[in-house]
Amino acid sequence: MKNFILRDENAIYYECKFSCDNVIYLNLSDEKYFITDARYTTEAKEYAKKCEIIESSNLIDTAKEILKKNKIKKLMFDPNDFTYAAYTNISENLKTQFIPKANFSKLKRIIKSDKEIVLLKKAAIKGREGFKELAKFIRKNGFNQSEEFLYFKAFEKMTHTGKLDISFEPIIAINENAAKPHALPTSKKLKLNDLLLVDAGIKYKRYCSDRTCTSAVDFEKFSFKREQKFKNDKHQKIYDIVLKAQLNAIEKARVGMKASEIDKLTRDVIEKAGFGKYFIHSTGHGVGLDIHEFPNINSKSDVIIEDNMVFTIEPGIYLPNEFGVRIEDTVVMQDGKAVIL
Amino acid sequence: MKNFILRDENAIYYECKFSCDNVIYLNLSDEKYFITDARYTTEAKEYAKKCEIIESSNLIDTAKEILKKNKIKKLMFDPNDFTYAAYTNISENLKTQFIPKANFSKLKRIIKSDKEIVLLKKAAIKGREGFKELAKFIRKNGFNQSEEFLYFKAFEKMTHTGKLDISFEPIIAINENAAKPHALPTSKKLKLNDLLLVDAGIKYKRYCSDRTCTSAVDFEKFSFKREQKFKNDKHQKIYDIVLKAQLNAIEKARVGMKASEIDKLTRDVIEKAGFGKYFIHSTGHGVGLDIHEFPNINSKSDVIIEDNMVFTIEPGIYLPNEFGVRIEDTVVMQDGKAVIL
Repeated sequence: MKNFILRDENAIYYECKFSCDNVIYLNLSDEKYFITDARYTTEAKEYAKKCEIIESSNLIDTAKEILKKNKIKKLMFDPNDFTYAAYTNISENLKTQFIPKANFSKLKRIIKSDKEIVLLKKAAIKGREGFKELAKFIRKNGFNQSEEFLYFKAFEKMTHTGKLDISFEPIIAINENAAKPHALPTSKKLKLNDLLLVDAGIKYKRYCSDRTCTSAVDFEKFSFKREQKFKNDKHQKIYDIVLKAQLNAIEKARVGMKASEIDKLTRDVIEKAGFGKYFIHSTGHGVGLDIHEFPNINSKSDVIIEDNMVFTIEPGIYLPNEFGVRIEDTVVMQDGKAVIL
Repeated sequence: MKNFILRDENAIYYECKFSCDNVIYLNLSDEKYFITDARYTTEAKEYAKKCEIIESSNLIDTAKEILKKNKIKKLMFDPNDFTYAAYTNISENLKTQFIPKANFSKLKRIIKSDKEIVLLKKAAIKGREGFKELAKFIRKNGFNQSEEFLYFKAFEKMTHTGKLDISFEPIIAINENAAKPHALPTSKKLKLNDLLLVDAGIKYKRYCSDRTCTSAVDFEKFSFKREQKFKNDKHQKIYDIVLKAQLNAIEKARVGMKASEIDKLTRDVIEKAGFGKYFIHSTGHGVGLDIHEFPNINSKSDVIIEDNMVFTIEPGIYLPNEFGVRIEDTVVMQDGKAVIL
């Protein structure tokens, strides 16, 4: 189907290289329309490619008029992209038939262009710089700081003090809090020999980075590197299993595999070690303009992995009320194999 | 109608004093159900009042089973609270009739309880503390700092270095950037005699604060107080008009007025001064668990103002490519009059 409508900011950016927080994009067979309000038309005219910019104080009514005028019979839309209210409003009193197709924009974006990979690589580098600066702060001044304060410091370092946006709220979790995959920061304070989990990412020119490190807390040598020496033997044991699982998937992932086979590469290691039931989420997710894109790397996904797909590999083991370990990198498939961005 | 369904986190918190980011709340005539996943059931059982906690790995299917079992004929839902996909999913193959009622939860929350006002007052105080700390930073070290860096500093000071959440992304805008009501921070740097607009708020126990100050930049005496002395005469002229408009509304707002009459109290002053066409938004909006609640204070709203309503009064004048001024406080109606929180 050639005709579709979009409201999602990133989906629209993908179509025409410009977007804003109040826009309807109509892709009709002969013409594309970027309908926005007076605040954005000047920039839209400068940056939006291959579409007509239409200024409107009521985007939905304007879109309806265009659909009527062009006698559009069928129009594809993403049912996740419209509230029930917006759907009702735009579809009522129109002869156009609205065809729901979930995630059609994200599915289009599953294979990244070389240009997009350059931006995702740059995002990953900027993200790693943030982690390095946060590690430096923790070595110098991390002792006895609360998760809340470290959350603020993660925001500071990841955004390069306000220059970049974060791609999601950083997760900062010490010991038992790290057993919750999406822990919120608390007043719990960082001590010597703690386990610290940090999951954070930024956006570079709208493209996201995503990385998780689990570290042994030693204020002299603290780092987010893969090599970690924990004082607590159980920390070390679990860490080594998760690391082995992650490296196994990164080394053995190949173009042509099903996504579920990559999931199996992490899950098998963890199951074999006896901790399968504590790996309570999927192995990974696509990353691009959105922090969660396709392919999903889980036990049920039949998607065939191809070159230029970008996704996370992030196995974890979560021992309730004890601690959790997750190790995550974002990889790109290149020449048939996974390369860390 | 007694039966309703909610998905919105704040709407659910309002019903039972607990919420999380994955929950369906069902209010049936005899029983209330809080359906969530395993991550949240322990806390839900501890904190959620007067409802049954149900653990589920598929919230929608569980909700459907409950609706079937209870033979529910009609169920109210907010069409803004459901995507078209979620609505389709929950309503298909069910005998229950789903009745859309936009904003029914927010409408319920339009008059705040005394307890809520205590929390909103506390949020306002914490928010003001953030502004004070930001002013202190600007006096000491604001010269030549970019909007991006000041945005980061606003985040630091408003959140009390990570202890509080922000209620929305702070707006930091210098001179011509302040002419855009929702400017994004740029690399533009702060200089002596600039005009600086800051719009920021925090959440205290889930309740929001919201305030905007426009200030004359003087690194010795910089403050966010109402009294501002600009070097630039046009800055001063416009500032004085906006301030007069805001004070006029705060002084004269009365219980029993229509919301549109309060809008008129700011708009008349600005129109009389000849700048009506540069006041491009409404006078204000309700504030509570959400940053935008009811009543809307605009030229079309017939809502009758009552005691214990909480809303912003925020007139502005925006001169494109020159500068903009907005002055905003959140007020509560008490004993018939508006009191700044």
